[in-house]
Amino acid sequence: MIRLMDVACRLSACLALACALAACGSVPAGRDAGQPGAVAVDPLPSWNDTAQKKAIVDFVRKTTTAGSADFVPPPERIAVFDDDGTLWIEQPAYVQFVFALQRLQALAPQHPEWRSQEPYRSALAGNMAGVFAKNGEANAMKLIMATHAGMSSDQFAVQARDWLASARDKRFGRTYPELVYQPMLEVLSYMRANGFKTFIVSGGGVEFMRGFAERAYGIPPEQVIGSSIKYQYTEVAGQPTLMRIGKVENVDDGPGKPITIQRVIGRRPVAAFGNSDGDLQMLRWTTSGKGARLGVIIHHTDAAREYAYDRTSKVGRLDKALDAAPGNGWIVVDMKRDWNRMFPGN
Amino acid sequence: MIRLMDVACRLSACLALACALAACGSVPAGRDAGQPGAVAVDPLPSWNDTAQKKAIVDFVRKTTTAGSADFVPPPERIAVFDDDGTLWIEQPAYVQFVFALQRLQALAPQHPEWRSQEPYRSALAGNMAGVFAKNGEANAMKLIMATHAGMSSDQFAVQARDWLASARDKRFGRTYPELVYQPMLEVLSYMRANGFKTFIVSGGGVEFMRGFAERAYGIPPEQVIGSSIKYQYTEVAGQPTLMRIGKVENVDDGPGKPITIQRVIGRRPVAAFGNSDGDLQMLRWTTSGKGARLGVIIHHTDAAREYAYDRTSKVGRLDKALDAAPGNGWIVVDMKRDWNRMFPGN
Repeated sequence: MIRLMDVACRLSACLALACALAACGSVPAGRDAGQPGAVAVDPLPSWNDTAQKKAIVDFVRKTTTAGSADFVPPPERIAVFDDDGTLWIEQPAYVQFVFALQRLQALAPQHPEWRSQEPYRSALAGNMAGVFAKNGEANAMKLIMATHAGMSSDQFAVQARDWLASARDKRFGRTYPELVYQPMLEVLSYMRANGFKTFIVSGGGVEFMRGFAERAYGIPPEQVIGSSIKYQYTEVAGQPTLMRIGKVENVDDGPGKPITIQRVIGRRPVAAFGNSDGDLQMLRWTTSGKGARLGVIIHHTDAAREYAYDRTSKVGRLDKALDAAPGNGWIVVDMKRDWNRMFPGN
Repeated sequence: MIRLMDVACRLSACLALACALAACGSVPAGRDAGQPGAVAVDPLPSWNDTAQKKAIVDFVRKTTTAGSADFVPPPERIAVFDDDGTLWIEQPAYVQFVFALQRLQALAPQHPEWRSQEPYRSALAGNMAGVFAKNGEANAMKLIMATHAGMSSDQFAVQARDWLASARDKRFGRTYPELVYQPMLEVLSYMRANGFKTFIVSGGGVEFMRGFAERAYGIPPEQVIGSSIKYQYTEVAGQPTLMRIGKVENVDDGPGKPITIQRVIGRRPVAAFGNSDGDLQMLRWTTSGKGARLGVIIHHTDAAREYAYDRTSKVGRLDKALDAAPGNGWIVVDMKRDWNRMFPGN
């Protein structure tokens, strides 16, 4: 129950959602082919020369220099990255919730009963206050299950991929996979070029993220960890099929992050990047290990180029983790000050 | 409940266990450094020149030859391997159950109440019939939880590693990680040298297997998938800690295998190796995908060098999957006929 409520809580944060979207183009390449270690090449050109950039580069150098007291053997170079708000945009609502509401519209003709049933009626009318007026958490879960369950794994993968390739953010006029942070793409490439294995560890749905993670971030499906729905194995017309059923399997948020990291990766990461209180335990788990560790918080401070929010935001709240940063030695990245580019190509 | 019973059923198969063990040495290297593609080198020297070997080699060749109609791009080269009975020995009892019973003995001094409480009393006396006489499944689960829960992830990892490095199989006088199948080590190396990513997908406990998989098979922790216990995140004396609590999180057996494959890997494998009915759905899921697929069943037919068992065995029963093999095009390996070596070094 607690886990189910966690999911619903994430979603209820989306109250203020303006969910009008449009359609578009190509996605930035993210897969890193490996860079030569030439000293003269700046691996993080979209980062200004502040202490934050230096801390990241110093960490990578000292953990990968043979003979260094902080050297980390390649198999142990595990780096984990939150997704929403750390690698891509999460305002004004989590992208996956926008997807859910759009899917609800698409499915509505097959569900005439939704015209009179709550929370579907309010959601279809764009009346988010109605959805969350009463039993908000249970209602949010109903919307998720109506759009994320009842199909096979293969069918859902197609739905997610197609939507991600076409839906556009209203403010920026770009597809969502184009609203990934260029400075973070550089960090991913830089760390991989130095032998780090990069994982996403996110509260987002694992199959939804796999719909773009490989193309956008260069992170293959088996390195994407997220929340998941229960599957049922059946054979349909002689074909093995994994059906997504309407129950939550795992919520990969807060204390769920170190738990899922241990279950799936089985090694404590040496570097973790997050942006909200949902990343607090992942950062603690990562940076309390022995030897050199890197904890980074992306602080959204740039209302002009993106959004500025932290302690009171309903989406991606950063409060306790911000307070915990100094005592834990975590690097707090000020997006406005530390990044000279926001998205690829701009 | 069904999942819990699945685990217990696996365990109740161990009724006949003779669990006397001893102590020993070094483990065969398994990590593959990549072989040159020289045609003259036999990648599978421990395999006799039968159709089974040819089928494996043909599959690897056609899926990795550029321009071949069956070419599989490197990121999609996912190969999954059952562990017990496929990569290492599973008779006369699953190694992990032997571990549980030995741990029970080690913990007994701290639990004087076990001397009068069932099923601990029977288990400590080596009276397996007593353990399984009544409520056998629940009893087996109690023995597992008494030995696998109540400690941190780090503590359990040390216990498993230490035991695996010292406990010896009675018949062979070797440590268990030395009772891995040499022909399968060659398959793992051969496939990795050809760009396949090798995963373990086993009903065994994921943290137990990680205690030897990297050294014995060259498979890193993040590519070991198995059954798992629930974790609780806490901070103990200011240190983040993952406590293993007495509940089952996931049973990775039978239909659970394709489900866990999808959740963790997120791609349908192109090759699967198993040896029992617990691998049936994994083999079906793998080989029913489009394009070239490889399904392999290791059939235990060699009582002289190892064990001979199949349809009526309580451990690693192979019955339905054996019947399903011809219709699905799966390769059935006859260990006696097809392998010229069994374990490394012999």
